[in-house]
Amino acid sequence: MTMETLDWLDLPCRAPDAVAAVAALERQAQLTKPPGSLGALETAAVQLAALQGAVKPSLEKVWISVFAADHGVAEEGVSAFPQAVTGAMVANFAQGGAAISVLARELGASLEVVNLGTVNDVGELPGVRRAWIAAQTANFARGEAMSTAQLALALQAGAQSVRLADEAGAQLFIGGEMGIGNTTAATALACALLGEAPDALAGAGTGLDEAGVARKAAAVQRALALHGEAAAPIAWLRCVGGFELAALAGAYIAAAQRGMPVLVDGFITSAAALVAARLQPACRPWMLFSHRSQERGHARLLEALEAEPLLDLQLRLGEASGAAVAVPLLRLACALHADMATFAEAGVAQA
Amino acid sequence: MTMETLDWLDLPCRAPDAVAAVAALERQAQLTKPPGSLGALETAAVQLAALQGAVKPSLEKVWISVFAADHGVAEEGVSAFPQAVTGAMVANFAQGGAAISVLARELGASLEVVNLGTVNDVGELPGVRRAWIAAQTANFARGEAMSTAQLALALQAGAQSVRLADEAGAQLFIGGEMGIGNTTAATALACALLGEAPDALAGAGTGLDEAGVARKAAAVQRALALHGEAAAPIAWLRCVGGFELAALAGAYIAAAQRGMPVLVDGFITSAAALVAARLQPACRPWMLFSHRSQERGHARLLEALEAEPLLDLQLRLGEASGAAVAVPLLRLACALHADMATFAEAGVAQA
Repeated sequence: MTMETLDWLDLPCRAPDAVAAVAALERQAQLTKPPGSLGALETAAVQLAALQGAVKPSLEKVWISVFAADHGVAEEGVSAFPQAVTGAMVANFAQGGAAISVLARELGASLEVVNLGTVNDVGELPGVRRAWIAAQTANFARGEAMSTAQLALALQAGAQSVRLADEAGAQLFIGGEMGIGNTTAATALACALLGEAPDALAGAGTGLDEAGVARKAAAVQRALALHGEAAAPIAWLRCVGGFELAALAGAYIAAAQRGMPVLVDGFITSAAALVAARLQPACRPWMLFSHRSQERGHARLLEALEAEPLLDLQLRLGEASGAAVAVPLLRLACALHADMATFAEAGVAQA
Repeated sequence: MTMETLDWLDLPCRAPDAVAAVAALERQAQLTKPPGSLGALETAAVQLAALQGAVKPSLEKVWISVFAADHGVAEEGVSAFPQAVTGAMVANFAQGGAAISVLARELGASLEVVNLGTVNDVGELPGVRRAWIAAQTANFARGEAMSTAQLALALQAGAQSVRLADEAGAQLFIGGEMGIGNTTAATALACALLGEAPDALAGAGTGLDEAGVARKAAAVQRALALHGEAAAPIAWLRCVGGFELAALAGAYIAAAQRGMPVLVDGFITSAAALVAARLQPACRPWMLFSHRSQERGHARLLEALEAEPLLDLQLRLGEASGAAVAVPLLRLACALHADMATFAEAGVAQA
């Protein structure tokens, strides 16, 4: 079996460590605070304990991979920005001027940018891994977005990022994305997998007006009719997905196979997470969710994933920015869990 | 005029810098992201610019003061924990084992603990400023919580913390509290100032059962009837407040007078913030709100303060812990605002 096939997607995922989870829960009950009073921070610490197999989890080493790709469906007029912005932003990531560049520096996180194919080809750049598949996908409102070979390459590119993260000792993997038109692809995937109408999930993306949102919903509607026979999640990913969406889905599955927790960002990444969870339900426990995006369809995706994100800051940028913003909260959750005194240690009476 | 009087409360507050706010807004519009796509992080950066009078605000130096005090109303059986816990937690703060101790270390923030009076007197401790007023307030369900002289001392203790923070170069002041029974005092204040019924605002505090919450509401109901003539916010603060609640209100007003932004924590601190805003409406613009607490009455207090907190993590610990957890978000908001490239700098096309 080679990585070029899709067979690796079916390899088993690791199981979270139930013993570590129980020990972490018991520790939480002994810390000098009313039981449960640290809310979601307690839940996160216990979940990370289960995923890292350690009573006291740690998130010193965080890895961020941002997958960039262009989308043929952009020609349907579904974005507020021109397609050349995808490549320009790859250069901006490399030069350190994008939101995720700033956030990664502040967090001391490793930032890898993966260029899967952009219409505006900015060539080789430092900090950018070139995993070129094509300049863009085909317009999925008029045909299949990609071939099976292209899909395999994209999934593999995501798995490769997780391997690099693992080899670098990362304790958390964050996937992000950049791609003009990719909220349309994510909306198409969400509608296909959830049986929702495009009108119900299409949103403003980077800033579409009402007419733009209507064009987006119409493009998705045409795609759903055109590829109606796709049926299986992997077929939908190929027919209406994008290279970065496939890379993210591949990364999430590969992370669960390696036993590495992932922190999901916003709308696009949640669509990829849903694809991953449909392909491999055992990868779902390895996902933490960072934020509830302002993009319209995100709430429905989170519901389908039974996800309770940490933040709701009306973010809608992508690039892994929302996940990065949640990292300090997870780190503080770990610090509280590890470093607070117990009632016995502090000589404080319990309720 | 001496600090022992209450007259200083009426000294004028500083005005936020409208010019810096406009410049910060203009900068946000030029950064390489869709306009508004960083949501509440953009709002926070612009608000901090106005408060610090700087186009690029910064939060390197954060000061946390935790005010501890005991409450006579505890004898009504309104807490899940014994009163001795207040003093024991002061010692735990000093020893570094409490949640806020861990958080302050992680943030590199200055942590000052102010002991205003505890039944369990743990004496002088390193890191604890003793501003002793009395071992506890009187039981406000049966009499006035404190004298005017005690109120003046408590308000002054808060102002003193802000002075220390200012002299240390702090760019943000966070007030926290510890005091068994203080959700009852905060509930009484909220009911008195907002005209709400105790049944509508009384919550579980550190973990009361249903009967405990009913006892708490009944105690507040008796207090409202007993002190019904109080009328003015300052009189309510004296009759049903606590030393730490008064210190927090004094701190918030003193901070606005000095031009120092404050980050409000949870339910107790929001009750103090409401008192401060009623005493001095011009102090309200200097407040940022960190989180929506799980304590039942907090939503109503936030509504009255027209506050939109950054976080909702089902926290209900106090000690300034929720505010501390929000600090990294504010720091990241400042970093994004200061360090992202503009469209012109990055050569990226605008929408």
